[in-house]
Amino acid sequence: MTFSQYAAAQGERVNAALQRLTPAESIEPPVIHKAMRYSLFAGGKRIRPLLALAAGECIDPAAKGLENAACALELIHTYSLIHDDLPALDNDDLRRGRPTNHKVFGEAMAILAGDSLLTLAFQVLAQLRDCPADRRIRLVEELAVASGTDGGMIGGQVHDLEGEHQTPTPELLERIHRAKTGALLRCSVRLGAIYCGANEADLAALSSYGEHIGLAFQIVDDLLDIEQSSEQLGKTAGKDVAQHKITFPAVYGIAKSHEMAEAELAAAYRSLEAFGDRAHWLREIANAIVNRNK
Amino acid sequence: MTFSQYAAAQGERVNAALQRLTPAESIEPPVIHKAMRYSLFAGGKRIRPLLALAAGECIDPAAKGLENAACALELIHTYSLIHDDLPALDNDDLRRGRPTNHKVFGEAMAILAGDSLLTLAFQVLAQLRDCPADRRIRLVEELAVASGTDGGMIGGQVHDLEGEHQTPTPELLERIHRAKTGALLRCSVRLGAIYCGANEADLAALSSYGEHIGLAFQIVDDLLDIEQSSEQLGKTAGKDVAQHKITFPAVYGIAKSHEMAEAELAAAYRSLEAFGDRAHWLREIANAIVNRNK
Repeated sequence: MTFSQYAAAQGERVNAALQRLTPAESIEPPVIHKAMRYSLFAGGKRIRPLLALAAGECIDPAAKGLENAACALELIHTYSLIHDDLPALDNDDLRRGRPTNHKVFGEAMAILAGDSLLTLAFQVLAQLRDCPADRRIRLVEELAVASGTDGGMIGGQVHDLEGEHQTPTPELLERIHRAKTGALLRCSVRLGAIYCGANEADLAALSSYGEHIGLAFQIVDDLLDIEQSSEQLGKTAGKDVAQHKITFPAVYGIAKSHEMAEAELAAAYRSLEAFGDRAHWLREIANAIVNRNK
Repeated sequence: MTFSQYAAAQGERVNAALQRLTPAESIEPPVIHKAMRYSLFAGGKRIRPLLALAAGECIDPAAKGLENAACALELIHTYSLIHDDLPALDNDDLRRGRPTNHKVFGEAMAILAGDSLLTLAFQVLAQLRDCPADRRIRLVEELAVASGTDGGMIGGQVHDLEGEHQTPTPELLERIHRAKTGALLRCSVRLGAIYCGANEADLAALSSYGEHIGLAFQIVDDLLDIEQSSEQLGKTAGKDVAQHKITFPAVYGIAKSHEMAEAELAAAYRSLEAFGDRAHWLREIANAIVNRNK
């Protein structure tokens, strides 16, 4: 099986689960469920669920219901995109090649759709029928911390907003990205592993892998914003420079940033050594992250 | 002990727990923690935590750590107020006699502060040390459903926004309020009871109590919006009429609405009969809800 075939098959599994777990458009009040589904099924690459599935199946290839846990990550990711795109935040009109949520449903509904997806993520974890309660509660805790203010996704978003008015230093850059994208990517790997009952040594190795690919992901994201057009990206290109964001190319330059992404990829590989062949798809995902849109 | 003394003592317990559970203003990034705390410690009456404490202590007067579970309800309630007040939603400048969150911190930070409080609510439930994992996971599920779109708080908010353009009927009114305020008030009672290990019969009786006071609360809220000044309310008065909201006085008239609030209070009392003296404070809270601001 090629990586494309693997990613497509896992993506279908995740999409089917998301369809099942998200209220239908016919449920009252329909407009909020339409708004949630508009962004949830907008052609996202499902990187976070893919990571959770691959990490979980590296521990227990026969795990049942793992795709439901993986959905919680996509729900959080999608809520964060809807809120980030709002006029008061990044004010973006285009996402994955389509008008952003507030452009279609209005700002009020976009705010509430984000709130709803965030809330649904925790409902989905609480209702995981194939997972013992003590593991489920750990998943809730991990996801809340990774999405929160203290070292988590929202904290990174706030640093990012504030960073527009600060001197770009390597320390600030690392703090922003460890939190903004890194925390949820690391959490994706950990959620899959915890769901499948990983021991602490395996969990530590997978967390290290998650941290390295999290950093690689953000470096590549920053580079793509400079090197690609809006059409290629499916979102507005060049916004980081326009908004004076603190990015890897801004701090280190383009050539050095490419080198750093490759170094993070190599470090991610090293974290997986003890798993041998079981970590095959985790390596492939890391590769795909660093080489995406090439 | 008078009800005022009881409410003040329980309020202090809740405030102390909220202080402990919410990241300090000194934690990075400080601005988001300032924004969260600004609205969280704005003099709210802590009705939802009070209900959780009284319901839990009706089942087990010696329950340990119950105030931490009660805080999750105030975190959800506060997030919903911050987002409701945003310009895209109710566009309110005044809340509890002070400028609303977005007036002080800006819209971007207000949106993120709401998201953070919502996320923290689930973190707090996941981290309840004095409660077994199977009960904790049930608390997470109950809170997520009560706060969500399908019969929960966000669903009610959406109906409310849409209701501005619909014919006010008793059916629509009931659907809006069962969801918008009713679901979280009912959930407050249930969370306390579940935390303390209530059996299903007790839980059903307490849920019925919660539904009746939820309805009473909303009827009184609608009446206060008409009958009191902005100074008395600590928020902008007369907004329901100005925004063509579907309210109890709009559908039933003022006199009949007062009667309905009294009838819900009587029904709440009846739901508590089996508990005898143990439900003393639940009765007092119901009274205080119906007779507030008198």
